[in-house]
Amino acid sequence: MALIVQKFGGSSVADAEKIRRVAGIIADTYQAGNDVVVVLSAQGDTTDDLLEKAAEINPKPSKRELDMLLSTGEQISISLCAMALEKMGMPVISLTGWQIGMQTNSNYGNARIKEVSCERIRRELDQRRIVLVAGFQGINKYDDITTLGRGGSDTTAVAIAAAMHADLCQIYTDVEGVYTCDPRKVPTAIKLEEITFDEMLELASLGAQVLHNRSVELAKKYGVNLEVLSSYVRKPGTKVKEVTKMEETKISGIAKDSNIARIALIGLKDEPGIAFKVFRVLANKNINIDIILQSIGRDDTEDISFTVAKGDMDAAVEALNANKGALGFKSLEVSDKVCKVSIVGAGMISSPGIAVLMFEALYDAKINIHMISTSEIKVSVLIDAEKADLAMQSIHKKFFGV
Amino acid sequence: MALIVQKFGGSSVADAEKIRRVAGIIADTYQAGNDVVVVLSAQGDTTDDLLEKAAEINPKPSKRELDMLLSTGEQISISLCAMALEKMGMPVISLTGWQIGMQTNSNYGNARIKEVSCERIRRELDQRRIVLVAGFQGINKYDDITTLGRGGSDTTAVAIAAAMHADLCQIYTDVEGVYTCDPRKVPTAIKLEEITFDEMLELASLGAQVLHNRSVELAKKYGVNLEVLSSYVRKPGTKVKEVTKMEETKISGIAKDSNIARIALIGLKDEPGIAFKVFRVLANKNINIDIILQSIGRDDTEDISFTVAKGDMDAAVEALNANKGALGFKSLEVSDKVCKVSIVGAGMISSPGIAVLMFEALYDAKINIHMISTSEIKVSVLIDAEKADLAMQSIHKKFFGV
Repeated sequence: MALIVQKFGGSSVADAEKIRRVAGIIADTYQAGNDVVVVLSAQGDTTDDLLEKAAEINPKPSKRELDMLLSTGEQISISLCAMALEKMGMPVISLTGWQIGMQTNSNYGNARIKEVSCERIRRELDQRRIVLVAGFQGINKYDDITTLGRGGSDTTAVAIAAAMHADLCQIYTDVEGVYTCDPRKVPTAIKLEEITFDEMLELASLGAQVLHNRSVELAKKYGVNLEVLSSYVRKPGTKVKEVTKMEETKISGIAKDSNIARIALIGLKDEPGIAFKVFRVLANKNINIDIILQSIGRDDTEDISFTVAKGDMDAAVEALNANKGALGFKSLEVSDKVCKVSIVGAGMISSPGIAVLMFEALYDAKINIHMISTSEIKVSVLIDAEKADLAMQSIHKKFFGV
Repeated sequence: MALIVQKFGGSSVADAEKIRRVAGIIADTYQAGNDVVVVLSAQGDTTDDLLEKAAEINPKPSKRELDMLLSTGEQISISLCAMALEKMGMPVISLTGWQIGMQTNSNYGNARIKEVSCERIRRELDQRRIVLVAGFQGINKYDDITTLGRGGSDTTAVAIAAAMHADLCQIYTDVEGVYTCDPRKVPTAIKLEEITFDEMLELASLGAQVLHNRSVELAKKYGVNLEVLSSYVRKPGTKVKEVTKMEETKISGIAKDSNIARIALIGLKDEPGIAFKVFRVLANKNINIDIILQSIGRDDTEDISFTVAKGDMDAAVEALNANKGALGFKSLEVSDKVCKVSIVGAGMISSPGIAVLMFEALYDAKINIHMISTSEIKVSVLIDAEKADLAMQSIHKKFFGV
């Protein structure tokens, strides 16, 4: 007998039929003798519908009231799913964020978890009840409802699994696991049996949106065994662990991030601290930069190129132009028709040939590389957006043969 | 400066436009210098929509999970209305049943209020915030969400007004106040300036569904000043008080109850305890009886007629027929084509002529009376359902001249 935490996303509980399917998975896990805690998201479009209702009344509501509104979505999901399990004769109880003691800070809309008491969950499990928990939500020290922001329900599930020392935390999604590449773009993509936390973190932050980064970070920190699997097909998914038995020389995945823009400052004075000055301007506007390329230009000047999230592009350009005099650049170039393609693999650091293979794959496909960035477990290249899918296919073929 | 509790029903907050109107009333009350606590129901059809979702999954869900589901409706209303007030620049906060400490018993779906702490509400009022409270809901001693059943939001408002010793509890509805008669049936109906709790109780239980009985009983018990008024027209409504300045000889209203059926047992043995035996059979089935008429029949037998709610008719007939031998009646007659019309007035007991005036009005309109029932403050008659509106018009003309 094990303690298993399961999480089902909004599309998995979108209607009555899907709720019944989810209830079937839960009931089977319970009847196999396990203690089961289930975290649910709001049904399908519920959150968008509520946001639309709010926008009609006030385009800029306070985040506190928005959280009060949005948290109803998960409450609806858990009560409906409880009813489906009741219909199957299962002992079940649904609990909201405040009922399970999900304590967060007061950063409405994007709150951080401080503590999960789980006392109530334990009492219910002791009575052999299936416990359904509303994901995405908590309460702060004033007893006000907060929400956890993007990927919040994944985070709820991992936090409960950590607090209760669960044997396994299963994240059910639309896909069958973590793939070597996005299966919609590269049909030959291969499902991974296992992947490390670090690889998963790189893949998540690189745009392979299977699991939200916060939940993977939390799982790594507390050593929670994660499994990503399908709520539609009953077969093993991908295990996310500290160490895997994968061959060291292989990469675990290829990811694409299109939410990116490149900015180039041309003709900066070649003097100490110039990079610091440029990036302080952006930091003051809370703009994160990603890949950076510094290069010698003509006539004792230098150029700096870097990437930002697409949504920050306009603000970045505005801030830089406002400081044109102090920074002393000649011209500014900007493009959002770029894309970052990355390969990730825990064994990469000890296999220098990996990056070369990637570049060869791009050369095979006649794709020009604008920028390169590397870390211990990844290599990223910036290329033209229109070549992104071709690049992924070519890289996948090079590494996986298909 | 006064403390005013306001309650708005589901139709008053049904869409963005109506929520803005309600927010306008609240803001005006606040800006006049008052402390304002507002109780809201779920928007328009929200509760029905949620019930439909539940029925699709489980036709007989547990009441505990149903309350978990339904309580989201009021939470949506309060957050949206708070956003409307924020847009107007008002300081406002919305609070759920558990956040205000609305303690109830565990009778899910029809819970009774045990205590309202109101501590949180007081803290928010101290900061000069408008407080929006989710009606209809509370929590039991296990921290589980309960709902208060029909008329629940009225009850929430009165309970808060009682606990906080509010100066006034305003119930906003679709109508401008309490009328001498249903204005849809009798266009000449007159809006009352004042009415006593007892009169209001009789009118509510007689089918004039302006206020739910539970809320009026609670208001009477704790001496809460109630006012019934329109959320569409800004003018004074009807005050509900312990004692009014109304003339004693006038009635305060005429009500109709069509949800009624008459059952007659013919040819019962004329022996002691026969009425007791008949009504024990019905009491065992939890069937309430209303007007009773016992009369001597032919050949040393007697007849008993009585009325029950329409929904209980079939069960009553079945129970009586099942005990036909023990009760010893010859035949059973039943009709649901009847209607109860009543006049209500606190001064009635000291003015014997009132009932006579009512009978005269019915005689004027050539309407036959089947049964009569009187109490200290009301006279009810059972007549054919098709004559009900005519009866109300004729009685209204007799008492009010129009």
